Amino acid sequence: MQLRHYLPILDWGRSYNRAALSNDLVAAVIVTIMLIPQSLAYALLAGLPPEAGIYASILPIVLYAIFGTSRALAVGPVAVVSLMTAAAIGQVAEQGSVGYAVAALSLALLSGAMLVAMGLLRLGFVANFLSHPVIAGFITASGVLIAASQLRHILGIEAHGHTLVEILSSLAAHLPETDITTLIIGAGATGFLFWVRKGLRPLLLRLGLPKGLAEVLTKAGPVAAVAVTTLLVWQLDLAAQGVAIVGDVPKGLPPLTLPSVSPDLLRALFVPALLISVIGFVESISVAQTLAAKRRQRIDPDQELIGLGAANLGAAFTGGYPVTGGFARSVVNFDAGAETPAAGAFTAVGLALAAVALTPLVYFLPKATLAATIIVAVLSLVDFSILSRTWRYAKADFIAVSATILLTLGVGVEAGVSSGVILSVLLHLYKTARPHVAEVGLVPGTQHFRNIHRHKVETRPGLLSLRVDESLYFVNARFLEDLILDRLAADPRLRDVVLICAAVNEIDYSALESLEAINARLAEQGIGLHLSEVKGPVMDRLQATSLAQHLNGQIFLSQYDAWCRLGGDVSDGCDGAGVGTPL
Amino acid sequence: MQLRHYLPILDWGRSYNRAALSNDLVAAVIVTIMLIPQSLAYALLAGLPPEAGIYASILPIVLYAIFGTSRALAVGPVAVVSLMTAAAIGQVAEQGSVGYAVAALSLALLSGAMLVAMGLLRLGFVANFLSHPVIAGFITASGVLIAASQLRHILGIEAHGHTLVEILSSLAAHLPETDITTLIIGAGATGFLFWVRKGLRPLLLRLGLPKGLAEVLTKAGPVAAVAVTTLLVWQLDLAAQGVAIVGDVPKGLPPLTLPSVSPDLLRALFVPALLISVIGFVESISVAQTLAAKRRQRIDPDQELIGLGAANLGAAFTGGYPVTGGFARSVVNFDAGAETPAAGAFTAVGLALAAVALTPLVYFLPKATLAATIIVAVLSLVDFSILSRTWRYAKADFIAVSATILLTLGVGVEAGVSSGVILSVLLHLYKTARPHVAEVGLVPGTQHFRNIHRHKVETRPGLLSLRVDESLYFVNARFLEDLILDRLAADPRLRDVVLICAAVNEIDYSALESLEAINARLAEQGIGLHLSEVKGPVMDRLQATSLAQHLNGQIFLSQYDAWCRLGGDVSDGCDGAGVGTPL
Repeated sequence: MQLRHYLPILDWGRSYNRAALSNDLVAAVIVTIMLIPQSLAYALLAGLPPEAGIYASILPIVLYAIFGTSRALAVGPVAVVSLMTAAAIGQVAEQGSVGYAVAALSLALLSGAMLVAMGLLRLGFVANFLSHPVIAGFITASGVLIAASQLRHILGIEAHGHTLVEILSSLAAHLPETDITTLIIGAGATGFLFWVRKGLRPLLLRLGLPKGLAEVLTKAGPVAAVAVTTLLVWQLDLAAQGVAIVGDVPKGLPPLTLPSVSPDLLRALFVPALLISVIGFVESISVAQTLAAKRRQRIDPDQELIGLGAANLGAAFTGGYPVTGGFARSVVNFDAGAETPAAGAFTAVGLALAAVALTPLVYFLPKATLAATIIVAVLSLVDFSILSRTWRYAKADFIAVSATILLTLGVGVEAGVSSGVILSVLLHLYKTARPHVAEVGLVPGTQHFRNIHRHKVETRPGLLSLRVDESLYFVNARFLEDLILDRLAADPRLRDVVLICAAVNEIDYSALESLEAINARLAEQGIGLHLSEVKGPVMDRLQATSLAQHLNGQIFLSQYDAWCRLGGDVSDGCDGAGVGTPL
Repeated sequence: MQLRHYLPILDWGRSYNRAALSNDLVAAVIVTIMLIPQSLAYALLAGLPPEAGIYASILPIVLYAIFGTSRALAVGPVAVVSLMTAAAIGQVAEQGSVGYAVAALSLALLSGAMLVAMGLLRLGFVANFLSHPVIAGFITASGVLIAASQLRHILGIEAHGHTLVEILSSLAAHLPETDITTLIIGAGATGFLFWVRKGLRPLLLRLGLPKGLAEVLTKAGPVAAVAVTTLLVWQLDLAAQGVAIVGDVPKGLPPLTLPSVSPDLLRALFVPALLISVIGFVESISVAQTLAAKRRQRIDPDQELIGLGAANLGAAFTGGYPVTGGFARSVVNFDAGAETPAAGAFTAVGLALAAVALTPLVYFLPKATLAATIIVAVLSLVDFSILSRTWRYAKADFIAVSATILLTLGVGVEAGVSSGVILSVLLHLYKTARPHVAEVGLVPGTQHFRNIHRHKVETRPGLLSLRVDESLYFVNARFLEDLILDRLAADPRLRDVVLICAAVNEIDYSALESLEAINARLAEQGIGLHLSEVKGPVMDRLQATSLAQHLNGQIFLSQYDAWCRLGGDVSDGCDGAGVGTPL
């Protein structure tokens, strides 16, 4: 049982049958064809040799198929993680150097180890620390960065940089060196791919193709672009005229590689690896959950961490780099009818065959085409509307998302995502530091109490009923103290203060001490401090405290009881005993 | 008006009269006498020349008197901040070197600038990020560290280290070199001072002295110890026998000093300065508020930041080091009858005179006596009961406080306090990440709904009423989604889900998207999603959203209305129209 929990394959494996097999095989073929150019392209984006992209898609897929819980998730290199990889190892090694490739392996090793550890410690919930707006903003900004960084391949020029400004100025500087032939190929491929996305699908549907097939053909657009431009370059010998091509890609299965474990390197890569792990996990889990929901399947986040961790460890030892569950590839896998992770395994076989036999075919593949596929893919992720949507709904979310976008574009991916997380946490604390406290009164003819400034309600002199709309904890402990003492100074007739705790979900030790201080201060002046509608879990804690014992007042089940006991009359529906009469 | 806000002196200055003057003068004399040995002692603790302690008590007091809002607070060197200063500048300069003293000035400059900035930005609330248990634990651990670090002066040996282990092992190593004469003086002084604390006051009261005077005499104990031991050393020429003495203290007013502003130094001191500022502010504000409360005066935290900042800037330019409002000295000042900050100004004059005329008197003052005064002072701050109190009340607070104590003792003051803060924030987020959600039912004969597991309540098949006891925000957004989908799978009869939002104080953008997802999923299955008891501020935000527009259900003012509208009958006190009948 325990074993089956950690090896989901034992679950679906036993019920595996011929129907599933054929569906999985079909899906595998389609995904394989799509993955070959995509893998090469993302390796290019990560600044690694093209084969690294292929290698990163073979063993990792198999390992995820064994440990992962999603039936349709396709694991491998993805755009954002490739960009983050380039940013991370760009700081510790020179692109193209051996150290660079080794650093990529170490990054995968670290990230894999972290993911497995988080999975075993059941820390799946850490993904929640990335708020939706922060993720949306980060993906959008990364998309812009990636597209900009690929322009150099479209123009056939040199250009570098990790921030938008660096990249654009570098592009501008080298613009005169633009290679027209490359530009024609790159622009042509880009235009074609955009048309495929927007125009081809409707066309195919009009031609009466089944929806699924149309989807798949549309997704296969990049393959066509790759084939056509490769043939062009080969036939017209454009490489000789300066069109940058992929060139030699070593033939054969992924090599066994050993990541460096030098303490300095690991220390330098620790934070980037952590960010890559969390970002990768968040991207992967959301894709997995979306697809699972469509088939009423469930995803186990903690087991997902283990599956992705295993995949990254696999990448580290087979010449790959950090991987995660990709959106595009998973959707294709799903649409193509993949039923089980076996589809992934078959895809791995297909890619292995490609690595062994087909690499010569991509010799003449122009880098401009790969850049085109990346640009078209990532621009579909770019969506700045999150800015306007958060602006309309909640300024705090807007601040977090705009900071994420600006810092990602202006400083780098790591600064962007970490500031987004830290800022959302601080803004949340800031909001809870000044909680909303409403003075309430009785809604006539009911037992309900509402804000005196928003509703027509009854109040009574001498009785102050405050509804605290926040948990009481250290960040806002002193706030309530000041607030009540100010109200005290303002209203000398005050006899009783009732704190309505319906919205108080926690009272931590700091807040407890503040309440004791308030109680003491009110007692000095002969004013009663009462609590009402205290929640079960909170009450359990309070019972044992000296506050409960020395409270200069009572604790009421409901605010209505408090209202009656503290002087409410029959007109309010209170009986003589001072309790609310049954309806 | 605005000016008077930033210059409280204009407030109390105009009403200053002869009575206040004489009271302030008396207090000043007493505090001055007490401060001379204390200042020397804390300078010793900070690893600075003795005069630094005196200098740090002159201009800073005056500046606080002008900008501060507390009537009785006495500003100057304090134990914990002195320890933190030693820890901070010990990392950037060799003790005794010129660089060391300069670093102390730069630390005061940085901390002063930060405090003023925080004050102008009205960031007084950041003090709340230090939870009560974390402060208590930090003060206790610091007290232990300080006492241990002073033992070397009692024993007359060399010993160093910033952690308890370092200090104790270093002491053990040098133990054989113990100087008996020094030990006798140190142990005697320590014993005497403990007796003064515990035994003298009751004795004096029994002798019929007025309470206030007894207090003051008790506080003056250190002065007696200083006088006696100094005379001993002088008469018996014990210095020649190896008793370490204060020695030459330059005569004269505080010098004008310029702190170094070298970027490297400032960068190295930035975090320590921030921690010192916050810790110092928290210690100071709590003393100020305690004393103000006794006389029904109010403290303005933001203006306090400016006052303390000014004091530290003053220290930076007059040969001092970071200062803050001290507990002991402020209490003495208060008990001695200080009425206005003018008392502080007079104290400054007294100390200036001492610096000019009296420094020769402390030539023979044994360091052991100063160490004794420190040890007795700080041990009164040590109180480990916070561990048991938090353990009983809230495990999260216990974890935070024990981590603070362990890391302060085992790693250092900075690690201790920062981990305490970070841990309390993370623990709070962790708690809110898995909020308490109660399924509720109607309490018969009332309009109240309570947890079905805690109370005898009515429920109805097909209707699921969930009370979410937490704000909905990014950290727990996904939680609710999973919870409801699980309940859905568990109960196929489900027709309506009502979320009671009485405890939901915020719904941020991430949570909004989760609710939209839940709504969509429930709608697919023809199940209604309803909200009840939504708070005003939350409702205002929801109104405009697509959730409110596409909600597959209704939003009810009260859960009781929801209960009636969704099928409640007359037996529940609902009328035909499906609303709760008036009482």
